[in-house]
Amino acid sequence: MSNAIFYHAGCPVCVEAERNLAAALDPARFSVEVVHLGESKERLPEAEAAGVHSVPALVLDGQVFHINYGADLVALK
Amino acid sequence: MSNAIFYHAGCPVCVEAERNLAAALDPARFSVEVVHLGESKERLPEAEAAGVHSVPALVLDGQVFHINYGADLVALK
Repeated sequence: MSNAIFYHAGCPVCVEAERNLAAALDPARFSVEVVHLGESKERLPEAEAAGVHSVPALVLDGQVFHINYGADLVALK
Repeated sequence: MSNAIFYHAGCPVCVEAERNLAAALDPARFSVEVVHLGESKERLPEAEAAGVHSVPALVLDGQVFHINYGADLVALK
């Protein structure tokens, strides 16, 4: 089981990506953790260290996929 | 079974997204078609009609998710 982290900030673009793309991952292979960076600001350094620049973003096996564009990470600080 | 179309152009960013994100979709729910828009230029109008502006992009149930950024669609014409 691989770890997948979906970072978002509650924006409409984020919600759509969560409902569709994050929910489309193979449940047999991925355990998806959803992190709201606007509410869990203590996770911001971790997201930045992973290479996340904007939300929504999905980190799969350490690789960052920025999905469409909702907000810059700096706007959440 | 839903239809998922992954549009790419063979760029490094595209290959990474295909190997990781497109391959991570639930095979029980999605049939993933991979379209190389540089080689299959006849699919460009269809991709544009779906709302694809750049590759790599994943269209899930009619919704477009632009993943990172490889190339603009106009560069493939």
